[in-house]
Amino acid sequence: MKAEKIQRLAARMAHIAPFEVMEIQGRARDLKERGKDVIHMEVGEPDFTTPAPIVEAAVKALSGGQPMFYTSALGTNALREAIAGFYQSKYGVTVDPARIIVTAGSSAALLLTFGVLLNVGDEVLMADPCYPCNRHFVRTLEGVPRLVPSGADTAYQLSAAHVAEHWTPRCAAALVASPSNPTGTLVPPDELAAIHRAVTSRGGTLIVDEIYQGLTYGVEPSTALSLGEDLFVINSFSKYFQMTGWRLGWVVVPPSYVREVEKLAQNLFISPSAIAQAAGLAAFRPETLAITEQRRAEFHARRDFLIPALRDIGFRIPVEPQGAFYVYADSSGLAEDSFALSRRILDETYVAMTPGRDFGSHQPDKHIRIAYTQKISRLEEAMHRIERLLKATR
Amino acid sequence: MKAEKIQRLAARMAHIAPFEVMEIQGRARDLKERGKDVIHMEVGEPDFTTPAPIVEAAVKALSGGQPMFYTSALGTNALREAIAGFYQSKYGVTVDPARIIVTAGSSAALLLTFGVLLNVGDEVLMADPCYPCNRHFVRTLEGVPRLVPSGADTAYQLSAAHVAEHWTPRCAAALVASPSNPTGTLVPPDELAAIHRAVTSRGGTLIVDEIYQGLTYGVEPSTALSLGEDLFVINSFSKYFQMTGWRLGWVVVPPSYVREVEKLAQNLFISPSAIAQAAGLAAFRPETLAITEQRRAEFHARRDFLIPALRDIGFRIPVEPQGAFYVYADSSGLAEDSFALSRRILDETYVAMTPGRDFGSHQPDKHIRIAYTQKISRLEEAMHRIERLLKATR
Repeated sequence: MKAEKIQRLAARMAHIAPFEVMEIQGRARDLKERGKDVIHMEVGEPDFTTPAPIVEAAVKALSGGQPMFYTSALGTNALREAIAGFYQSKYGVTVDPARIIVTAGSSAALLLTFGVLLNVGDEVLMADPCYPCNRHFVRTLEGVPRLVPSGADTAYQLSAAHVAEHWTPRCAAALVASPSNPTGTLVPPDELAAIHRAVTSRGGTLIVDEIYQGLTYGVEPSTALSLGEDLFVINSFSKYFQMTGWRLGWVVVPPSYVREVEKLAQNLFISPSAIAQAAGLAAFRPETLAITEQRRAEFHARRDFLIPALRDIGFRIPVEPQGAFYVYADSSGLAEDSFALSRRILDETYVAMTPGRDFGSHQPDKHIRIAYTQKISRLEEAMHRIERLLKATR
Repeated sequence: MKAEKIQRLAARMAHIAPFEVMEIQGRARDLKERGKDVIHMEVGEPDFTTPAPIVEAAVKALSGGQPMFYTSALGTNALREAIAGFYQSKYGVTVDPARIIVTAGSSAALLLTFGVLLNVGDEVLMADPCYPCNRHFVRTLEGVPRLVPSGADTAYQLSAAHVAEHWTPRCAAALVASPSNPTGTLVPPDELAAIHRAVTSRGGTLIVDEIYQGLTYGVEPSTALSLGEDLFVINSFSKYFQMTGWRLGWVVVPPSYVREVEKLAQNLFISPSAIAQAAGLAAFRPETLAITEQRRAEFHARRDFLIPALRDIGFRIPVEPQGAFYVYADSSGLAEDSFALSRRILDETYVAMTPGRDFGSHQPDKHIRIAYTQKISRLEEAMHRIERLLKATR
């Protein structure tokens, strides 16, 4: 391709960074193509394939001739009711299916939520580090992400005290993710309630990202929906149900916003994927949940292996992650620059991990996100390789 | 649900209208549930189900255990190359697959295109009437749609003369759709070339919507890509390949924009649907194209039936549509208000059609969009019913 100069570029693009992890993935792919045995611990995606009952439901819908037409922009009633049923049976929370809007992954849910809430220049409080797309969604809509440096003292999470300290008249909303990507940490229910009060008492709207809901270890999973009806709760079939490539998620919105979100969804997306919705109906069946719970136990075991193993080779983990499938490890005892370290580890040991850079500007050089999306035997192998490298260069 | 007052609403939402057609669909559904024999001519969706080879490819991928993980944000290389191959074989145009970005329907393609181009307040020229989402995408990104009243004299399309007359210093881009929703009309290749020159000579960017590409009757299908590499061309698997509910489309971007669109796609969508991409690979096979061409012939026959039939009962059709599956009929000889007329037709004859209101503010009261997404026998029945109603009230 010609390398002509770009003619016109929206100013927002200066604020929208590429995923660092994609660069690392590309480099890892190159190494693999050169015959290297790469261990992938960089990607935010379960290594498990979609549970068989979900895949079978898709095959059955297709083979049975179910037409794959547009559905309602809000999603099929059957799926919205199934999601409500799951909130009831698993979390004991009653949610009106009318408030549940099915989306093309949580990505679409985030765009719709910020789309109905934010004006030009409106600020959104969020923890730094956090999922990088969050700030880019806000920028796309001409809002301003207000990153709150969040350290080990608050489990890398936003706190009610943070809200009190960082809220400005331009703040429209605060975003909390529990469990969090990249840190795997949770916000305790009482702290979440305090954040909710802190935000709403200032006239703001609380958005809770529950994309990793269900993936908790030693802690009962919960939902922010028990706090009331005035918040937006984002969710996904990608992580707990291992449906990443299907692009299916949902958002629960306050009753008064349903119509507005519907309008925006009609215009921006027309409809979520019909085949993904047909498949997703099987997600809440007992046979599927038996599989997802077994996989959760496997993630739990991996975490329990990985944390002490990382500490043994010199990483610091001041807050033990209790959810998702990430360890956000402090690498400052091993190297000054986590970016250079993770690149050296990849190039010399073929273990891919994501440096802090992707997740914000609060001490990214000191942290690496390590995903335990590999079997324990592979995690062991990865730890051995890194240990050898670190010993050799000490 | 409680009918509480909405607390905070982005100003853009005042500019984002719901689809009128959805209201009509809802009303049509109610009538059907009451046992009425509703004839649907309101929806912008083929009545044909997805061609069997495409469905079979999806089933094969799923049954064969292909994991449904995220793909590259740009789409799979296999599908990007298949699209490039189709441009070569069907249109004789060479397109570098690196410029082809696979998206979640043309909806995502439009969002990405406007996202990389528009700043707050930037204007986009577009014909009025046009596909309503276009102006809502622009509003979502805080741009300003500049609607150009377009009548029968320019086949309801933007012209080079329109660009010269309506261009302002705030204009960033012009959008042309050929074939057009709602009018079914085309922009002739020489006029499109003139529009391209008119836009680029003013420092603007041309965006061409080819979502209905391939669905032309008595006219060879063509692509704006033959005009050069400096324009954005939007496309979709929804209409010609009858894959609406799969949510699969693409955009061809200028070489210098690939990286910027990739960044935005990574952040806003992560990846297009893996299963839709696996299915879409079968779209360009000879056995699929045999089906889509047969269906095109069927649309052609329907159009040839419908135009004189509509004229017989009093609609005016000053420009014969040559593409898509719509007639944008002038109803002003039958009633003053097309909205009231289409509602009366629905309520009394159970024939659903979309009044002009959805498509802009240039004489919406005088027009109705009529989709020929029904068999000829049903179109005949619809015409008889409307004729009886109109005779009875004359």
